[in-house]
Amino acid sequence: MSDLLIPRTASAYNYPLLIKNLLLYPVVDNPDQEIVYRDLYRGNYRQLRERVKRLANMLTGLGVKPGQTVAVMDWDSHRYLELFFAVPMIGAVLHTINVRLSAEQILYTIDHAEDDVLLVNSEFLPIMEQIRGRIDNVRTYILISDDGMTECSTIPACGEYEQLLAQASPEFEFPDLDENTRATTFYTTGTTGMPKGVYFSHRQLVLHSLGLLATLGSSTSHACLHRDDVYMPITPMFHVHAWGVPYIATMLGVKQVYPGRYLPETLLELKEKEGVSFSHCVPTILHMLLKHPLAEKIDLRGWKLIIGGAALSRNLCVESLRLGIDVFTGYGMSETCPILTISKLTPEMLELSHAEQAEIRCKTGLALALVDLRVVDSNFNELPRDGVSAGNVVVRSPWLSQGYLKDHKASERLWEGGYLHTGDVAVRDELGYLKITDRSKDVIKVAGEWVSSLELEDIVAHHPAVAEVAVIGKPDEKWGERPLALVVLKPTEGTKVTDKEIAHHVREYADKGVVSKQVVLVKVKLVPSIDKTSVGKINKVALREKYL
Amino acid sequence: MSDLLIPRTASAYNYPLLIKNLLLYPVVDNPDQEIVYRDLYRGNYRQLRERVKRLANMLTGLGVKPGQTVAVMDWDSHRYLELFFAVPMIGAVLHTINVRLSAEQILYTIDHAEDDVLLVNSEFLPIMEQIRGRIDNVRTYILISDDGMTECSTIPACGEYEQLLAQASPEFEFPDLDENTRATTFYTTGTTGMPKGVYFSHRQLVLHSLGLLATLGSSTSHACLHRDDVYMPITPMFHVHAWGVPYIATMLGVKQVYPGRYLPETLLELKEKEGVSFSHCVPTILHMLLKHPLAEKIDLRGWKLIIGGAALSRNLCVESLRLGIDVFTGYGMSETCPILTISKLTPEMLELSHAEQAEIRCKTGLALALVDLRVVDSNFNELPRDGVSAGNVVVRSPWLSQGYLKDHKASERLWEGGYLHTGDVAVRDELGYLKITDRSKDVIKVAGEWVSSLELEDIVAHHPAVAEVAVIGKPDEKWGERPLALVVLKPTEGTKVTDKEIAHHVREYADKGVVSKQVVLVKVKLVPSIDKTSVGKINKVALREKYL
Repeated sequence: MSDLLIPRTASAYNYPLLIKNLLLYPVVDNPDQEIVYRDLYRGNYRQLRERVKRLANMLTGLGVKPGQTVAVMDWDSHRYLELFFAVPMIGAVLHTINVRLSAEQILYTIDHAEDDVLLVNSEFLPIMEQIRGRIDNVRTYILISDDGMTECSTIPACGEYEQLLAQASPEFEFPDLDENTRATTFYTTGTTGMPKGVYFSHRQLVLHSLGLLATLGSSTSHACLHRDDVYMPITPMFHVHAWGVPYIATMLGVKQVYPGRYLPETLLELKEKEGVSFSHCVPTILHMLLKHPLAEKIDLRGWKLIIGGAALSRNLCVESLRLGIDVFTGYGMSETCPILTISKLTPEMLELSHAEQAEIRCKTGLALALVDLRVVDSNFNELPRDGVSAGNVVVRSPWLSQGYLKDHKASERLWEGGYLHTGDVAVRDELGYLKITDRSKDVIKVAGEWVSSLELEDIVAHHPAVAEVAVIGKPDEKWGERPLALVVLKPTEGTKVTDKEIAHHVREYADKGVVSKQVVLVKVKLVPSIDKTSVGKINKVALREKYL
Repeated sequence: MSDLLIPRTASAYNYPLLIKNLLLYPVVDNPDQEIVYRDLYRGNYRQLRERVKRLANMLTGLGVKPGQTVAVMDWDSHRYLELFFAVPMIGAVLHTINVRLSAEQILYTIDHAEDDVLLVNSEFLPIMEQIRGRIDNVRTYILISDDGMTECSTIPACGEYEQLLAQASPEFEFPDLDENTRATTFYTTGTTGMPKGVYFSHRQLVLHSLGLLATLGSSTSHACLHRDDVYMPITPMFHVHAWGVPYIATMLGVKQVYPGRYLPETLLELKEKEGVSFSHCVPTILHMLLKHPLAEKIDLRGWKLIIGGAALSRNLCVESLRLGIDVFTGYGMSETCPILTISKLTPEMLELSHAEQAEIRCKTGLALALVDLRVVDSNFNELPRDGVSAGNVVVRSPWLSQGYLKDHKASERLWEGGYLHTGDVAVRDELGYLKITDRSKDVIKVAGEWVSSLELEDIVAHHPAVAEVAVIGKPDEKWGERPLALVVLKPTEGTKVTDKEIAHHVREYADKGVVSKQVVLVKVKLVPSIDKTSVGKINKVALREKYL
């Protein structure tokens, strides 16, 4: 076969796809463009490059070797952006620790990832206090501080980030690496068992950047990220590289704004003050932002916002559109780097009413370029694009985790049959728009038919008295399962509305025929709150334990 | 080192970058979008995919095996687009024959590339007539015809394209290939010796598409190719895959218009009738289009036009801007797939006057993402970005030909020191905009200083009586070399203007100090025409032979 391959001249440079190339050879080389961290740092791309080189010297000076792991516990910051580049660029692995995990889980991931170096923001020292003395592998600690703290007793820090940076040389020649070198690792907070580690190579991160940019760039006005945008992440950088957007923003040379911890007031103030035009977040955060008094006072028009992590409800979508926010859905998961689909609209669709657009924007959308996404039945046959045939979502793309770290069995399950199994159940409409109807493990099977808990949640959420809802399947002798809707009422409605009224509201939808008849079997239970996972998703495992 | 690479689960799919993925998993899957060939064919993407499958069956049915070469002689057509995909997708190599070469040169390339199958448009049968009986390697001929011809006596054709396509099955499973499989080959028409073959892999063509799209997509209004554009190539598909844009257009799912042979009237009519908004061409064609009477009658506003292949003159640029054309420069060559730079403007630059914009738009622009482009002195040291330090342009990117086909020596020269040597001389300004000042072999060295023949050509072209100009270096005992400007006057001016007046016009520029003093040594010679290469570039080798 080898004579089929392109012949290579001995001297010819066989260009590997490396993260350094996104920084060094970007779409736009914009040295004076700003990079902002809250009101604490205001630098530019020239400084970014210099600081990345200093950071490389700092880390190699501390003995970090290719293949070793550098872990970070920080809020979204310019420092995190620097680490996104410097750590993989010296051939090391960046472990982005999920700071919302429990201390015990954090200890588990530090141990499992075999972290050699740990950078810790002083705000997380209380967590470190809980696990001190039980970390075996970390050799070097570096303190990160926003308040001038340079020493602490909790960790044996070799110094503070800014001080060490200032001492390091600003010159560094980044080596060429094999493009399949591991660049990042982080842990998915599954609903069962301990967190599982996923990992991505340089090549995968470069291709995710180019693939996502092919979709976000090529639109004229809607769902686009262009060279004149201003970017601020509102999905944590420890969570799937903030969906990979910091890499793209850096390639584009746009102004970047890092907000630290997500406080609604800070986020809205930064949005206004810095002219932010592109962000991404989970629905819970969007909800929080829109409910904040500042939301009425500042101009949100033209803010492009990818929503992912959980289903965007039509109500929240319509409310966002009313405020002029270009809100749309992205779909993916930790295992997928993450983005697989985007709910981009055609120019004709953008002429529709907000309510009609919301139907499309709340779907998870169309596959990105190079993404082979299939909805299949249990025999792996692709299902018709008819908007009703629900099946498992399986996928191939150049940027999927090739397994779970040190977990052979789970890796094989993930990739059974050569496709990555997302664990999601979905339908596709005639135009190819994907709509996630359920997690395959969360499916509710009523009288042999699958009922979509997400669809049912959406219907319940339409009732004006409902603040939050989660639907789980309750074992039932007669029907196999019946849907159980756990409902949190709005505080003002607390005493006025009954579970029966909510159930009646659902049945009306069934009577109108807009949803399968099985939903009339719904039971409604009013609850004070709904359990969430560390990344803000509804924790159905916990809910089942509690209510079944 | 191998433990530094990402671990791969046995079942995990290690996604190769293949041309089939651009067609099967595009940015926008738009089955009803049109693909048009003159007034002779109007199909859509659904048909494109079906025809590509039929074509794959046709070719494999004729015995084409992976690694074999399928050559094409056709004008730009929907068929060519089908061949762009089908041939590499079955693992064969597409040889796009330059139909403007002499019959002898065409024979040379057919022989050198070891073509197994040759598809020939009936318009090129006269060329085949000249070389019949001397082609040894071609096993199978396929006739292409726009006028219903299905048989001919010149070549032993096994059938006509449309008829064979209709007989072939519309089902085909495209295999996975090594991403470094050779996909295409074609010949550069250098100014010395026989044509040299370059070659590109699947991976390279996919990365060129993603890299170019990263630049063309990420702009809001200027120099952009978006999902709502309509594309028509005006650089031949046999010439570096029409600059690779048909692959990108197909990824984006946009309407595509193929114009056949380039006739100004047909091009302008198609532009208007089909709503073309994105094209690319050489300056000569743009000149021809603007001089055509139709140009005044149709609305050219918003037409995005990449100019490459030769320098865009400021006059032509300003005239295009006056008509509302968004004209900008691209730079590259056959060896580079081709595009390396694009003269994109910032929003602030777009506020400048046309004349000021022309200064920027006529530069060859800024490197694309992932392109490591350097301007170096003879010791390979990078030169300052000061707009005056001229040096050799050398480059690395993921899409550069890894050598010349079966020419080890020339391949090593091309890649000496691990960088591809473009053979161009350029300066870079403070913002990084590249400006080609000369071909390294065409440099004119006057009294030890390099004089830019391109700059001098641009100045001469500013004289109202000048239709065309080429500057070469004439050996001179005193100065080493003196610039010799070969000038073709406009027909209406033929008798009124003398060589002395043109020389005076040049000296005025030198007196104003806008150009180096050496140009006052220019000699002007009025000539009836200027020799061109087969792709329309000024043939300085021929000119030197004739006039020195």
